Amino acid sequence: MDFSALLTSAGINIAFCALFLSLYSVLRKQPHNFGVYFGRRLAEEKFRQQVDYFSFERLLPTAGWIVKAYWCTEEEIRRVAGLDSVVFLRLFIFSIRIFSITSLVCIFGVLPVNYHGKEKAHSHIPAESLNVFTIANIREGSRMLWVHCVALYVITVSACILLYYEYKYISRKRLAHITGSTPNPAHFSVLVRSIPKSDNELLDDTIRNFFVNYHGSSYLSHKMIYRKGNMQKFVDNAERAYRNFVKVKLSAFGQSRRSNVSRCGLCGVRASSFQLYRNKFIDKKKSDLSDPDVIEAQKDCPGAIVFFKTRYAAIVASKILPSSNPMLWVTDLAPEPRDVYWSNLWIPYRQIWLRKLAVLAASVGFMFVFIVPVAFVQSMMQVDQLQQMFPFLRGVLKKSIFVRVITGYLPSVVLLLSQYTVPPLMMFFSSIEGSISRSSRKRSACCKVLFFTIWNVFFVNVLSGSVINQLNVLTKPKDMPSMLAELVPKQATFFITYVLTSGWASLCSEILQVYNLIYNFFRKCVCCYWDEPEYVYSFPYHYVVPKVLLFNLLGFTFSILAPLILPFLLVYFCLGYLVYRNQILNVYYPKYEMGGKLWPVMHNGLVFALVLTQIIALGVFTIKHSPVATGFTILLLIGTILFNEYCRHRFARIFDSFSAQDLIELDRDDEQSGRMEEIHQHLLDAYSQASNINGSKSSKNGEGPSKWFWTIRRKKHRIQTKNSLTR
Amino acid sequence: MDFSALLTSAGINIAFCALFLSLYSVLRKQPHNFGVYFGRRLAEEKFRQQVDYFSFERLLPTAGWIVKAYWCTEEEIRRVAGLDSVVFLRLFIFSIRIFSITSLVCIFGVLPVNYHGKEKAHSHIPAESLNVFTIANIREGSRMLWVHCVALYVITVSACILLYYEYKYISRKRLAHITGSTPNPAHFSVLVRSIPKSDNELLDDTIRNFFVNYHGSSYLSHKMIYRKGNMQKFVDNAERAYRNFVKVKLSAFGQSRRSNVSRCGLCGVRASSFQLYRNKFIDKKKSDLSDPDVIEAQKDCPGAIVFFKTRYAAIVASKILPSSNPMLWVTDLAPEPRDVYWSNLWIPYRQIWLRKLAVLAASVGFMFVFIVPVAFVQSMMQVDQLQQMFPFLRGVLKKSIFVRVITGYLPSVVLLLSQYTVPPLMMFFSSIEGSISRSSRKRSACCKVLFFTIWNVFFVNVLSGSVINQLNVLTKPKDMPSMLAELVPKQATFFITYVLTSGWASLCSEILQVYNLIYNFFRKCVCCYWDEPEYVYSFPYHYVVPKVLLFNLLGFTFSILAPLILPFLLVYFCLGYLVYRNQILNVYYPKYEMGGKLWPVMHNGLVFALVLTQIIALGVFTIKHSPVATGFTILLLIGTILFNEYCRHRFARIFDSFSAQDLIELDRDDEQSGRMEEIHQHLLDAYSQASNINGSKSSKNGEGPSKWFWTIRRKKHRIQTKNSLTR
Repeated sequence: MDFSALLTSAGINIAFCALFLSLYSVLRKQPHNFGVYFGRRLAEEKFRQQVDYFSFERLLPTAGWIVKAYWCTEEEIRRVAGLDSVVFLRLFIFSIRIFSITSLVCIFGVLPVNYHGKEKAHSHIPAESLNVFTIANIREGSRMLWVHCVALYVITVSACILLYYEYKYISRKRLAHITGSTPNPAHFSVLVRSIPKSDNELLDDTIRNFFVNYHGSSYLSHKMIYRKGNMQKFVDNAERAYRNFVKVKLSAFGQSRRSNVSRCGLCGVRASSFQLYRNKFIDKKKSDLSDPDVIEAQKDCPGAIVFFKTRYAAIVASKILPSSNPMLWVTDLAPEPRDVYWSNLWIPYRQIWLRKLAVLAASVGFMFVFIVPVAFVQSMMQVDQLQQMFPFLRGVLKKSIFVRVITGYLPSVVLLLSQYTVPPLMMFFSSIEGSISRSSRKRSACCKVLFFTIWNVFFVNVLSGSVINQLNVLTKPKDMPSMLAELVPKQATFFITYVLTSGWASLCSEILQVYNLIYNFFRKCVCCYWDEPEYVYSFPYHYVVPKVLLFNLLGFTFSILAPLILPFLLVYFCLGYLVYRNQILNVYYPKYEMGGKLWPVMHNGLVFALVLTQIIALGVFTIKHSPVATGFTILLLIGTILFNEYCRHRFARIFDSFSAQDLIELDRDDEQSGRMEEIHQHLLDAYSQASNINGSKSSKNGEGPSKWFWTIRRKKHRIQTKNSLTR
Repeated sequence: MDFSALLTSAGINIAFCALFLSLYSVLRKQPHNFGVYFGRRLAEEKFRQQVDYFSFERLLPTAGWIVKAYWCTEEEIRRVAGLDSVVFLRLFIFSIRIFSITSLVCIFGVLPVNYHGKEKAHSHIPAESLNVFTIANIREGSRMLWVHCVALYVITVSACILLYYEYKYISRKRLAHITGSTPNPAHFSVLVRSIPKSDNELLDDTIRNFFVNYHGSSYLSHKMIYRKGNMQKFVDNAERAYRNFVKVKLSAFGQSRRSNVSRCGLCGVRASSFQLYRNKFIDKKKSDLSDPDVIEAQKDCPGAIVFFKTRYAAIVASKILPSSNPMLWVTDLAPEPRDVYWSNLWIPYRQIWLRKLAVLAASVGFMFVFIVPVAFVQSMMQVDQLQQMFPFLRGVLKKSIFVRVITGYLPSVVLLLSQYTVPPLMMFFSSIEGSISRSSRKRSACCKVLFFTIWNVFFVNVLSGSVINQLNVLTKPKDMPSMLAELVPKQATFFITYVLTSGWASLCSEILQVYNLIYNFFRKCVCCYWDEPEYVYSFPYHYVVPKVLLFNLLGFTFSILAPLILPFLLVYFCLGYLVYRNQILNVYYPKYEMGGKLWPVMHNGLVFALVLTQIIALGVFTIKHSPVATGFTILLLIGTILFNEYCRHRFARIFDSFSAQDLIELDRDDEQSGRMEEIHQHLLDAYSQASNINGSKSSKNGEGPSKWFWTIRRKKHRIQTKNSLTR
């Protein structure tokens, strides 16, 4: 591929991007698309008041949304979309900062050195092969390699400094989030599983006796979790039928949307009366131990949520081994009510370690099976191989424009499409793993997709392009650096086009919400359902974060090898920052809060990218016979690993747990202000299994027993915690 | 090496063993050796009453000690030598059991199959090469490989069953030990390091304020740890001089040994008055913040020991993150007073992660440097290579008896001698790592020596025997199983002689205590110091446990490859069991208690041995073209890994921590019996830095402020915990 093919590819993409963004700015103004483009704001019902008049302006592409997205403050984003969105946007800010520095250093320092690496007559730049701009153009034993070494130092040191400050900033944000937010029922509750069953005692009594005995002063109450029995399934079905009925009625009478879940349209009975009925049913059932039904119900109980009087008592109960058998009375801090993954709570605790191992094996297996499509894509890069495989294409491939499109564009589109299967599959894997909360399921899926992406996009593409039997490479870890050093620069072309297609195009597809747009069109125009769809999506961290981290990895590894990739990446990060800000503000509704726990994952991904860059650089310097640069790179590698260890010791525990100091202060504050009584009264209602089974569907309206917790706001923000961190 | 050379080697060793054991049974009866052979019993001063008369019987070798060692009950061993000794002896019991089964299966099942593997005329057995008895004698594609596969299944399944019951048995013992022992000051105390220093507050007040504020109801008191200043060094020197003076005086007046540490001979002042003086000195010093000396003393304080009113409060304080900065207020459950490693407490906490990394790097580095002597030893196995290296040996090497001794005996003696440097070095590494207790230092050293032993004795010997550049092998993990399968049987000869020399001989040297015997001889007969030496050794788990685990590894890996090794191993384990029982009862004095925490290390070592055996078997079956056996072995491998995971989930946390249930029960028990007050009063005295700095020297006498804790015995043994475990 030569420089002009790259420009063709870039041109196509810029045109597409401009087109899509204009299209977006028009489509978003059409009222019947509000459900697609303003899902979050519709869910919060602030947007409804707009009058639906037609104006010519609605058909003009404008850039107002960019301005709005850019000027929104971080505090505002945190308020409307939670801490996780802020953390995710910090990743973009970090990327923009570090790649500005990297671009500066590499475009003006490394690129000219690469270009003039071999003394030969340079032809006209557009006709140059892209290889001329890579490190492959430097001759062996060249003295100019010190430029690359210095560039590597500058990049690593600035990345580490930026990473440190980001970690510090985000931990401070997390602590402020914990201490400054409204009282959270999750902080008072402990999930207990694997409760030992006794023949002469009701399970309910067993739990009460245990906690009264060992946590007597702080135990408040508890709530059993019941597996869905047949009767409950019947009630659920009745409830669903009733809801549909109410919905039809309401849409017929044109009443406000708001009331159709919380109030029964005709008879005035609350929807939650079904739940009360079920609770009564259960209460009646478990009165007597001689009743076989009661014994059956006992068997079905996988655990309980135990409430404590203070936050500190809850964390103590969750962290200290409760009994001398670690497989009994397993305690964990309960997830937030809206975050509980109820169907996984019914998994017997004894199965969970086995499930985790099985999922690990399945994920690794899938990673290796997926090599097949990737290798196929790589083979498309070689035109002659393509001609051999599909002889009927021979005529088409003679025209150079087609060749350019096929070699520069099509492979990564194929790769992109085949990768759409991965995130849902990994999400499924994480579900059967037995996570107790939706947020931990998403975090686990995020890690899996990250491993998958780095392996299948980066490694397999790098290795399969030139080596026939890729798996052979795995068996020689010692040769890895020099092999990578030889192969990575060769794949620069592919990855530049990958950034253009997978990166830029995915941003366009993200902002246009193609799938939802089409669905909405068919729903409204073809099927004539004119009300807004009930379902609002939560932010898909599990496939967006790995993608952004992959682009960081590409940026770091190619920075000194093939700096031409950097401007395209920088454009991606800037555009992505705006696009995702817009989407977070308008489209996605935060259904649960991870409290910034994704940052350690991102941090580790970024440090891995740095280390990989250094390993490849090590290989390059060895191949190019530059022992001094090799030595300095080894020093840098050790330094980076030490930096990561330090960060782990300094910050990681903040993201794992809460500190005694913070929790005790919060408890005292609530006790002194007399709010504690009120919190205790509302605790029992907070975790309602019935209303949360369909939580993902109904949470849009923010209704439910835990609503109270989200409406009282803590006035006093705690500065103390911040101080302790800045020390 | 042929069968007769093996018999020669075995003969030499059996003769030596018989000689040494007889010598031991004579030497132990000589009163001037009591210090060497009855250190523990002397330390407990029960042995002194024996009348020192001469009889002819003293010169006759007898086997009474074997009978005594054999008939001692486990409970008795636990009482006199602690739980760790019991756990260590359980390792021998496990080894004897599993290798009885293995020997049975392999000698009668596998060995005949190997011997008749290739259809050829067998010569007279003593002249047969040892290779005839290994799996190398089976031809490719042989149908008899199912015998090996079945044997592997029998060995693995019985090992897993035995391991499970051992783990269960030992966890029950550990729980009974925790709940049944005397009140332990360590359970009430938390070690706090990295205390934030403030300019306008004394450190003492900072600590008090923090704990009164956040653990007000359970905080009892605290004690600062001071680094040795110049003044303290002076006091220490004075104390040492005084002690020597007292000792000379006492030995001159012939007073009882007992009083020379606890009482000042002439003036009747207790030795601990020095300590009181020092404490006063410190108290006086820190009265004023404006005093520069006080500020200096503050800087020198690396932490404090905080005492709580209940055990439960202490464990809560140690497990919950105290402040939102994980690098400040670092809390750990304090080690037992006699177990505290004071000099490491003075290491700033911020250094510790760096030290750990550095030690890890140093240990790995040392492991690779050590390949050199091992490779040299291996080269001695080839007589012709030896002749090339040392031409003057040519005459000697022509005589076959010398060749037999050199090839069969000398290499492992050289290996044995060079390995004496490793345990002290690893102990040194573990010291600079920053362990806060002596027991954790020893455990860490044990793990290091274990890795070292398995790598340098097993892997390097297997690989270097045939491959010139051993490190090349490391770079091809995929070829590892088949390479091991090819090389391991070839090294059978070497490892059989290794068991004979390193194994049997080390037992003889252990029971004879050669070094101490010579030292004692010179001390008493040459230097004429007739009193018993003050120093008693604690049991050297850090090099005995890895050695026993190595022999287990050898037994498992060679079981189906070269079953001839098994009888020698079985003898080793039986003899070792008796020898170490005797040594534990008579020689070693338990200076601290690890509470059985070594068992998880042993368990992991044994499971690793099983997995390695299966990997090698996988390679063997692949080489011998037996796909069915390969498939079954993969199943077995997966099963073993699952078994290990299950054990980890079921038992590991018991060895890491205490359970709330147990601690609360203990607290209640003490409170109801009114003993709690008494315990609180003695807590402050328990941790005395001054008396424990030289703790390793003076602990022989069991004197010290914590003595009280070791003299009151808990009468009521708790059965409840046992029940919870057997559920």
